[in-house]
Amino acid sequence: MNFEERMEQETAQIEEILKRFLPAGEGYAKTVEEAVNYSVLAGGKRLRPMLMRECFRLFGGEGELVEPFMAAIEFIHTYSLVHDDLPCMDNDEYRRGRKTTHAVYGEGMAVLAGDALLNLAFETAAGALETAAVMEGGNGEAFPGEGNSLLLRTAAALRVLAEKAGMKGMIGGQCADTQAEASAPEQVTQELLLYIHDKKTAAMIQSAMMIGGILAGAGKEQVRALERIGGSIGLAFQIQDDILDLTGSLEVLGKQTGSDLKNHKVTYVSLNGMERSAGEVRRLSEEALEGLRELTEARNLFLEELVENLITRKK
Amino acid sequence: MNFEERMEQETAQIEEILKRFLPAGEGYAKTVEEAVNYSVLAGGKRLRPMLMRECFRLFGGEGELVEPFMAAIEFIHTYSLVHDDLPCMDNDEYRRGRKTTHAVYGEGMAVLAGDALLNLAFETAAGALETAAVMEGGNGEAFPGEGNSLLLRTAAALRVLAEKAGMKGMIGGQCADTQAEASAPEQVTQELLLYIHDKKTAAMIQSAMMIGGILAGAGKEQVRALERIGGSIGLAFQIQDDILDLTGSLEVLGKQTGSDLKNHKVTYVSLNGMERSAGEVRRLSEEALEGLRELTEARNLFLEELVENLITRKK
Repeated sequence: MNFEERMEQETAQIEEILKRFLPAGEGYAKTVEEAVNYSVLAGGKRLRPMLMRECFRLFGGEGELVEPFMAAIEFIHTYSLVHDDLPCMDNDEYRRGRKTTHAVYGEGMAVLAGDALLNLAFETAAGALETAAVMEGGNGEAFPGEGNSLLLRTAAALRVLAEKAGMKGMIGGQCADTQAEASAPEQVTQELLLYIHDKKTAAMIQSAMMIGGILAGAGKEQVRALERIGGSIGLAFQIQDDILDLTGSLEVLGKQTGSDLKNHKVTYVSLNGMERSAGEVRRLSEEALEGLRELTEARNLFLEELVENLITRKK
Repeated sequence: MNFEERMEQETAQIEEILKRFLPAGEGYAKTVEEAVNYSVLAGGKRLRPMLMRECFRLFGGEGELVEPFMAAIEFIHTYSLVHDDLPCMDNDEYRRGRKTTHAVYGEGMAVLAGDALLNLAFETAAGALETAAVMEGGNGEAFPGEGNSLLLRTAAALRVLAEKAGMKGMIGGQCADTQAEASAPEQVTQELLLYIHDKKTAAMIQSAMMIGGILAGAGKEQVRALERIGGSIGLAFQIQDDILDLTGSLEVLGKQTGSDLKNHKVTYVSLNGMERSAGEVRRLSEEALEGLRELTEARNLFLEELVENLITRKK
């Protein structure tokens, strides 16, 4: 099985996991449940749950305890897109060639569906707490004396999920990004830009990788390393995005008409130039891959390939 | 100390608890943090955290473990108001004589602030999980053999918090309510109306009371009883609201111009008449108070007075 086939197989499995935690779309709350299903089942690469499971596997994790968290992080990612697309935010009517949630269900219902997804993420993770308790026979001690029971791991994972999605994470980045877009270009400093990328893009990648490790029993130092690696991946991913916005249109149209340029958006590339930006992507990519290899004695080659592919993608 | 003085004292304490879990309002995410603080510190009776703590006390609960959950439920209540007030929902510019969040910070920031509050609620509750683990010395067994450790109680409380706020609870009720308001009056049946009140109003009262009991170590039957009692209180509260909407304006203006009447809104009173509605409030109120007295050998007179006051209020 080559990388593409493996990706397809993993994605198909993740779709099934997501469906298991989605609502039935029945009863008096039918409409919001349908809007939730519509929003989640819109395709997408499922990168965050995929990264989570591969980090879980890297540390020898087995079984289903990671699955509710895989669903939870995808629900959080999806809610952030639903609310981002709203007319009072980015006002997008299409995403991946498909009508956005508010374009189909109306604005009020899209606000509710986003809220419902964020709530469902934590409901799903809270369910994992109960599963962990049952797996341990209800006394919270799978590994007596280690202070590292399944229940404690699940609690730590839930904390990371909440922190990285909140004001110290993704929402903080969204707030800064919203304000940066409304500011004069000269006010958008490198420091602010790095903050935005670290919170808006990297935080959820860090969350995915850290939770995978935590649930499989990774130690504190290893979880911190996953956080650093996730930070490198997130930043590299974002810079590559900015590069593709420029070069992609250059190749296709023969002139520079990237949407960032048109919108006079300050990006890492506009601040640092193309050459330095491309160099930074290479440096961050190597840093991330080296970090992954140093994490454990075992290696997860699919994870390494996934990370490389994520960063150096051409579209 | 009479009831009013006790209420004031409790409310002041709850304000301090809320402030402890609110963000600092600094750094690049300053604006959303300020909007969150503005939304929460807008006054309000703090009934849900108050009910939670009194149920906690009724079952002999002591210490601070309930406090993060008191903050969490108020954060969820607040986010629901912030999003409800949005132009694409109820479009309210004022609440309790003060500008609503979007009127001050703009719509986009109000969406983010609501999201941040919902997220913060679960972040705060997740913090309580860690506190519980530390209180137990990290091994999840405060009460060996009972399967009822502090960590397990906290996990159960988190599950209730998420369920009652989500599509099976408050959000489900909001969805049905939004659609009922857009429907022809004859389509709003008694069954639908009871569903809306049970989910939109009662669910968060049930959540508050159940979590208080769970954290103090109440048994399954007792928690189920708290759920029933919370359901009665929520419905009685809502019917009383509809009654006051009619009689309040009748007394003040000398004619019936309640906002529900003006909006042709179907209410419990419009479906069942004033007399039967008032009778139902009395019946539900007695049911709730009797239920509370039967719950434990101990009594919490302040809780009983609080419930009575909540239901039979005159404004």
